[in-house]
Amino acid sequence: MALKYYHAEPLANSLKSMIPLFEKGLEFESVYVNLHKFEQHESWFLAINPEGQVPVLDHDGAIVTHTTVINEYLEDAFPDRPPLRPNTPAGNARMRYWNKFVDEHVMNFVSMHGWHRLIGIIARKIESGEFEKLLERIPLHEQREKWRTARSGFSEADLANATRKIEVAVDKVEAQLGETAWLAGDMFTLADVNFYSHCGMMVERMFPEMEIASRCPRLVDWRERLTARPAVQEALNMPDHTEPGLRTWSGHAR
Amino acid sequence: MALKYYHAEPLANSLKSMIPLFEKGLEFESVYVNLHKFEQHESWFLAINPEGQVPVLDHDGAIVTHTTVINEYLEDAFPDRPPLRPNTPAGNARMRYWNKFVDEHVMNFVSMHGWHRLIGIIARKIESGEFEKLLERIPLHEQREKWRTARSGFSEADLANATRKIEVAVDKVEAQLGETAWLAGDMFTLADVNFYSHCGMMVERMFPEMEIASRCPRLVDWRERLTARPAVQEALNMPDHTEPGLRTWSGHAR
Repeated sequence: MALKYYHAEPLANSLKSMIPLFEKGLEFESVYVNLHKFEQHESWFLAINPEGQVPVLDHDGAIVTHTTVINEYLEDAFPDRPPLRPNTPAGNARMRYWNKFVDEHVMNFVSMHGWHRLIGIIARKIESGEFEKLLERIPLHEQREKWRTARSGFSEADLANATRKIEVAVDKVEAQLGETAWLAGDMFTLADVNFYSHCGMMVERMFPEMEIASRCPRLVDWRERLTARPAVQEALNMPDHTEPGLRTWSGHAR
Repeated sequence: MALKYYHAEPLANSLKSMIPLFEKGLEFESVYVNLHKFEQHESWFLAINPEGQVPVLDHDGAIVTHTTVINEYLEDAFPDRPPLRPNTPAGNARMRYWNKFVDEHVMNFVSMHGWHRLIGIIARKIESGEFEKLLERIPLHEQREKWRTARSGFSEADLANATRKIEVAVDKVEAQLGETAWLAGDMFTLADVNFYSHCGMMVERMFPEMEIASRCPRLVDWRERLTARPAVQEALNMPDHTEPGLRTWSGHAR
């Protein structure tokens, strides 16, 4: 049995499937894909994932992409390991409701601010002719447009809408944590891993104007409980090749 | 054991969870929610689903929303009924990959054209003061904006982008059907139900300029196999209260 995990820095998507790997104590070969050098668009990587995106799980040659899919795959493939899915019909539904919410209403909006602060600077450092060549290699239309927009700058209206979505999300999570210890109930699940990786881990650091500590005390407590988990520590300690001055998106879990 | 299904016309989301109910031979109480009269925003319905959206599954008082979540719930809750999920790790991952693709890259784009052709006309028939009052009752910001935009008209750029997304989707499905009989492999699954309900069922009828019959012959064959299933027929025969002249989105499976 051989697991190989292709990933970038420990945040967002790459963190999201790394936490379950460590939580389950699964041995895996870590293959770092350097997004700062656009390795995800190189032909060797496109041969593995034609969509040109990290992370990718390779399980004995079976390729699984998209973190929400990878994470349920790990639950299905390793039922004897500590579960991160309730495995009751109602519990799974609650977990999937939150996964869907994070995937569709949170991820892209924190990501836009992350791209604005990190990828925009990287993209503007590239010479014009060179940049067009890089764009040509990107297989997904949406990713090409995101790179193009990152270089020219996201609009104030789009950034403000993204901020509004994130405010809705942190208030929704805060309300849920008044009802249950974790997002999908009394059990720590993939829903917590999802919101943590895409928003909860860095929302206070990235958006000081939201005053998360006073606005969402339960979210802060939840984040601390999550960050303290040994498996999460292991995942967060994976290498971060982002230049220290650009670590506005990656960086400490706060 | 009592199942109650709150739904609108047999297309898109409402069709998507109705097909599995019939495929599994589950008895359920059908509760028609009249979207043409905005019943989904009335207080009795908001008490069931605070998000103000159909469909909703009520299983002995447990409320499940969002069709992809409902459909996996039915798999989890009724394992003795005919499965629409492979129930192998790799098979489930393929099914979920396609579900995610339809949920994030297909549904909203066909829906925009549907709203443009149907809801736009309905929205423009409402007096101005009355329309603002209706908007106030809509709980989700995104839905309020969609209604507002439907009334004023979606932009040509947004409609063209939606068309582009649908073209990418039908070509992707056509390619997959060259490899496997159904989207996730050799088994008919929730992925097929998803793409059929949101796009495959009506794409030829709604977008004649795409020349689906010649562009995607395998998709047409797949659609016919799906439409011919007795459970799909039962679902499609549920009442359609759309005015006949406005049936550009709902209507025959073609």
